[in-house]
Amino acid sequence: MTTATSIETVPSYVQDAWWTPASGVTGTDARDASTGEVLARVSAEGLDLGAAVEHARTVGQTQLGQLTIHERALKLRELAAYLNDRRQELYDISARTGATKIDSMVDIDGGIGVLFTFSSKGRRELPNANVIVDGPVEVLSKDGSFIAEHIYTRIPGVAVQINAFNFPVWGMLEKFAPAFIAGVPTIVKPATPSGYLAEAAVRAIVESGILPEGALQLISGSARTLLDVLDYRDMVSFTGSAATAITLKNHPNVAHGGVRFTAETDSLNAAILGPDAVPGTLEFDAFIKSVVTEMTVKAGQKCTSIRRTIVPNELKQAVIDAIGARISERVVVGDPRAEGVTMGALASLEQLADVRAAVETMLAAGGELAYGTLDAPTVTRADGTVAAVADGAFMTPVLLSWANAEAPEVHALEAFGPVSSVIGYATHPGHDGQGLDVSEAVRLAALGAGSLVATVCTNDPATARALVTGIAAHHGRVLVLNREDARTSTGHGSPVPHLVHGGPGRAGGGEELGGIRSVKHHMQRTAIQGSPNMLTAVTGVWHTGADRVTAGSAEFGAVAGAVHPFRKSLAELRIGDAFASGLRQVTLEDITAFANSTGDTFYAHTDAAAAEKNPFFPGIVAHGYLLVSWAAGLFVEPAPGPVLANYGLESLRFITPVAAGDSIRVTLTAKKITPRVTDEYGEVCWDAILHNQDGEIVATYDVLTLVEKEETLYADNL
Amino acid sequence: MTTATSIETVPSYVQDAWWTPASGVTGTDARDASTGEVLARVSAEGLDLGAAVEHARTVGQTQLGQLTIHERALKLRELAAYLNDRRQELYDISARTGATKIDSMVDIDGGIGVLFTFSSKGRRELPNANVIVDGPVEVLSKDGSFIAEHIYTRIPGVAVQINAFNFPVWGMLEKFAPAFIAGVPTIVKPATPSGYLAEAAVRAIVESGILPEGALQLISGSARTLLDVLDYRDMVSFTGSAATAITLKNHPNVAHGGVRFTAETDSLNAAILGPDAVPGTLEFDAFIKSVVTEMTVKAGQKCTSIRRTIVPNELKQAVIDAIGARISERVVVGDPRAEGVTMGALASLEQLADVRAAVETMLAAGGELAYGTLDAPTVTRADGTVAAVADGAFMTPVLLSWANAEAPEVHALEAFGPVSSVIGYATHPGHDGQGLDVSEAVRLAALGAGSLVATVCTNDPATARALVTGIAAHHGRVLVLNREDARTSTGHGSPVPHLVHGGPGRAGGGEELGGIRSVKHHMQRTAIQGSPNMLTAVTGVWHTGADRVTAGSAEFGAVAGAVHPFRKSLAELRIGDAFASGLRQVTLEDITAFANSTGDTFYAHTDAAAAEKNPFFPGIVAHGYLLVSWAAGLFVEPAPGPVLANYGLESLRFITPVAAGDSIRVTLTAKKITPRVTDEYGEVCWDAILHNQDGEIVATYDVLTLVEKEETLYADNL
Repeated sequence: MTTATSIETVPSYVQDAWWTPASGVTGTDARDASTGEVLARVSAEGLDLGAAVEHARTVGQTQLGQLTIHERALKLRELAAYLNDRRQELYDISARTGATKIDSMVDIDGGIGVLFTFSSKGRRELPNANVIVDGPVEVLSKDGSFIAEHIYTRIPGVAVQINAFNFPVWGMLEKFAPAFIAGVPTIVKPATPSGYLAEAAVRAIVESGILPEGALQLISGSARTLLDVLDYRDMVSFTGSAATAITLKNHPNVAHGGVRFTAETDSLNAAILGPDAVPGTLEFDAFIKSVVTEMTVKAGQKCTSIRRTIVPNELKQAVIDAIGARISERVVVGDPRAEGVTMGALASLEQLADVRAAVETMLAAGGELAYGTLDAPTVTRADGTVAAVADGAFMTPVLLSWANAEAPEVHALEAFGPVSSVIGYATHPGHDGQGLDVSEAVRLAALGAGSLVATVCTNDPATARALVTGIAAHHGRVLVLNREDARTSTGHGSPVPHLVHGGPGRAGGGEELGGIRSVKHHMQRTAIQGSPNMLTAVTGVWHTGADRVTAGSAEFGAVAGAVHPFRKSLAELRIGDAFASGLRQVTLEDITAFANSTGDTFYAHTDAAAAEKNPFFPGIVAHGYLLVSWAAGLFVEPAPGPVLANYGLESLRFITPVAAGDSIRVTLTAKKITPRVTDEYGEVCWDAILHNQDGEIVATYDVLTLVEKEETLYADNL
Repeated sequence: MTTATSIETVPSYVQDAWWTPASGVTGTDARDASTGEVLARVSAEGLDLGAAVEHARTVGQTQLGQLTIHERALKLRELAAYLNDRRQELYDISARTGATKIDSMVDIDGGIGVLFTFSSKGRRELPNANVIVDGPVEVLSKDGSFIAEHIYTRIPGVAVQINAFNFPVWGMLEKFAPAFIAGVPTIVKPATPSGYLAEAAVRAIVESGILPEGALQLISGSARTLLDVLDYRDMVSFTGSAATAITLKNHPNVAHGGVRFTAETDSLNAAILGPDAVPGTLEFDAFIKSVVTEMTVKAGQKCTSIRRTIVPNELKQAVIDAIGARISERVVVGDPRAEGVTMGALASLEQLADVRAAVETMLAAGGELAYGTLDAPTVTRADGTVAAVADGAFMTPVLLSWANAEAPEVHALEAFGPVSSVIGYATHPGHDGQGLDVSEAVRLAALGAGSLVATVCTNDPATARALVTGIAAHHGRVLVLNREDARTSTGHGSPVPHLVHGGPGRAGGGEELGGIRSVKHHMQRTAIQGSPNMLTAVTGVWHTGADRVTAGSAEFGAVAGAVHPFRKSLAELRIGDAFASGLRQVTLEDITAFANSTGDTFYAHTDAAAAEKNPFFPGIVAHGYLLVSWAAGLFVEPAPGPVLANYGLESLRFITPVAAGDSIRVTLTAKKITPRVTDEYGEVCWDAILHNQDGEIVATYDVLTLVEKEETLYADNL
């Protein structure tokens, strides 16, 4: 703590304004990890947290609610591009945290990458709306008048995001992006040691002017009472130590008050070497490389680092030797601003002390030092000289070897630094000659009691299957490393925005990222029951049985004056606009001609005797492809118009076979309309249903088309 | 408490054997709700809970793991049919809990119905496997050698299910069914007052002999220390009071230890009457009927009952009058074994005292008695006489009217009996002439701070949209009631197995049911990264880029001796078996002929000038339907064989247009094989990809076929 006034205080950003505590307020010092220099003071003393939460719930919710999911997604892309241009200033600040250039890129470029990914996924995988339909319609009455489905709508509160010190930019953006897409305002609370870097990123974001009011607030400094003002409308996403997670989870507003809470905590992640991956294989080399990378990137201060290296007993020494050799060759410890340094400092002297203490405990419990030392290392300083640096939080990588593979300290004690343990497992002959039994490796991995991630290194499919399905329920992510993906893998330690990050048990029991899964984590799933018309009104998606305005054949429901919906641009088209064709008869000659022209001479279309024997057909039947081709002929409006292309079909099912002599007709109904924010057209999904002359359903599917927003391209033709 | 020895003790069922406490052990009495007669004693004193949990984790997990999802689903169907035949004995016991015949059917038939639904959904919507793939494949490297997806595997522990007293059979089966489908063993802990009915149901289940060992255990009696022996592998699903939920949630093994915990607690559910639903409309009548039903079914002892009736101010008196009139006409309180009784007793005198106390508090807080009384009612006894029954837990329905719609007691105090409150809301003119603004009703509904379910009663689409999207985030389920579904609706108070049951905030923050969603709640979602071959090995589903064994055109990858996969039964077919065709050229004549025969004369296929103007086409292009029809001609094996039918297509996308002069070829690969347990055939999903002469992708889709398990039907033909 310091009360010196020469040091600047890291500001907070609340209620759309920068805020600093009154002068004279005490705070915590943030120091340069390599030199110990005091960089800034951190304090939120006197900040009105209740007002910040209320600002999010009112202004933030209102402003975000005025944008659709796609509009918010586009803002993320704009923001990503903007931050991309300001990376260098963030790199410069990042070096003070002990991060090497590569570490900084993981944090800063990685964070920007999350924005790009969510922007793209939000527009590609979600509707351009504010209600997301989840799963299929359930028909709950025989006559179809009572149906149900599930929708997601955003939670009506604020997303409070509490981040760890190790990835101040990525950690912030990976939580912010899905909340923003969901339409939920964020209050971010970075960790104190590196909060000045998060503040710099927030400052850039604010300066961009891209986000709506209330969408993002920053609390720099301790905010212990923040949870006091939250309720069931809000959520807390926490990354950090298990101890802090428990404190938060026990807060009355979480335990009783219904605040949604998710945690991602450190875990003792495993890397398992398959028995086939012996020295000399590409798998062995990839394994060693991965372990060393995970030990040393960010000086091992990653919640995903490999802490437990689980290898066949007979390969244990070879693994230890190879890891040691690779560290010796590759790792240069020092100030990340110095040329040639590949591993920087830990975040602080406090962290260093914690890690050293954990290693001491492990040595006392039977771990043997297989590589490295606890002696203070000589390191490369910023000016390139090599010396002991007393104020820097440096240590060498440490590899421990254990004779007792089940020692609790291996599986439960985490040294949050460049430290890993090697343990051995016995293999046994497999059942039914199915390769080796690796169940002991599964059992050892599960002793971690829930982990974020594990690597399984093997090129044998049976071993991969046994290991992955054996450990999956104990993990949030499993990477299968082999010769095929060793070069292209994104790596054991890297959460990717497409995949869930989190894990059961010790890993916190939470789930972040995972593409749009994490957007939905910011939403409430609600079952909606009602008539087709009412569900259409609520979701904006047409439901079978809801009202239509039908053009086409009066015999099949067309009303006078209705225009063929293919003649309507998105500006004119409404959900429920429909076209009903007349009947067209299918003759045996048609079927034969189709078989001959397409080459599809499957016996069901050509051989009456064989077709009759088939349990599903009455005899020769029309090709399913004939039916959908003819249906297109029945519903199409041939002349140029606003419908530009049919880009696909979904969920085609053939229900009742069509024999020679039967007739078919089609009804096409505008089901879902998705204007694209960035194009002159949008997607229209049409419900298509084919009936036969008896009114039986022949086939159902969705037709996907691109339709102009306004009729322009062929407007002259009309 | 009693130590009398003449009363039988309700047994537990643990480690696949019946267990009763040592004689002389104290216990709690279970009494007939209508007469106060002591029926049984309940005690689990001396039961080895640790052994029960270990039995589930070992024997239960092993036995369940030897069945696939479909095999487990079939057992549920078998069990449902078995219990269906034993309903009468359960009805007889159920009457002792105060339940009328209709109440008993909701509980018993409802529970059996859940088994049927999960059996059907498990087989229809899940693979016949033990790994469920979640969501699309994510391609994480440019060359496709590193990909990822998510899988679900069952949690490796036990599902502990703690149920409420009001639905002893349904409450047990709705939790058991999804756990069983997932492959997770159950330990069920019923509520003491009606645990004897749950025990009778378990006894029938055990006698059926249908379930594998360790799949179901029953603890009759208090099991306060059960959570002490659980860890992160296990889950607890709780239904009951919020107070007990909090106690359980604060248990160290939940708060720190990673036990998965979900709660469904009572909530103050709302029914909102839209301003259009005035007296004389079908909506008004349906609304009144629903409120009275929810007040009186199960004597209002349902967590889903309507506690808050929110109506336009100007309709408030009409609603109160109509509810009162309907209760007077319809409701006869008494022993459910008596003819003509439509509302039975509360579960116990303790419950009755609680409800009366809650009503007293509400009256003191400003609630006015609009219908009913707190005086002890005269009721119909089992023998048909009408009298006061001092030992029976009877009360009349009570309707309260509130001048202050925001009184906290309306929104926070639950009388868990036949009690509801009526409050009014003001409407305002809507924006943009969009009907009336009903935001005050939304605000009042949200004062419940999270509810299981709400009814929205309106026939106006804009009102439905405003109310539903306004309240959705505060609710687990919303029912839109109007003239279209009033007769067919399953009702406000009935959770259906297809839809989620649960809600945010006060409702417990959990989610049960919801079809296969609840199966997945018993599983861990894990991201799996690796090469296509490794993900194929892990999931049993072929992935683009994985190895194929290709028949057909040697030019496009066929190997010598490979058999066309359409010639293989499921017994012979392997994931990755493929067929590659040669190229076939598309001429302008082909396109014209296809347009003429199908009638699909869309300008892109017939009018060169107009087609060239289209932003997506180079000029005249082949119909997408022509391409897939020809592809079938290219890949088909015409002669009869094990492939019986093509029943559909999925995810068809047209990527590159095909112009006259271009050629196409198709590659078909066996992607997913799902033998049906109950049929002589199964589903095969084929990956289909069309390329042009330049190797560009023209279209991608999945072809769905039915294939014989063994070649039998046309075996003679060969």
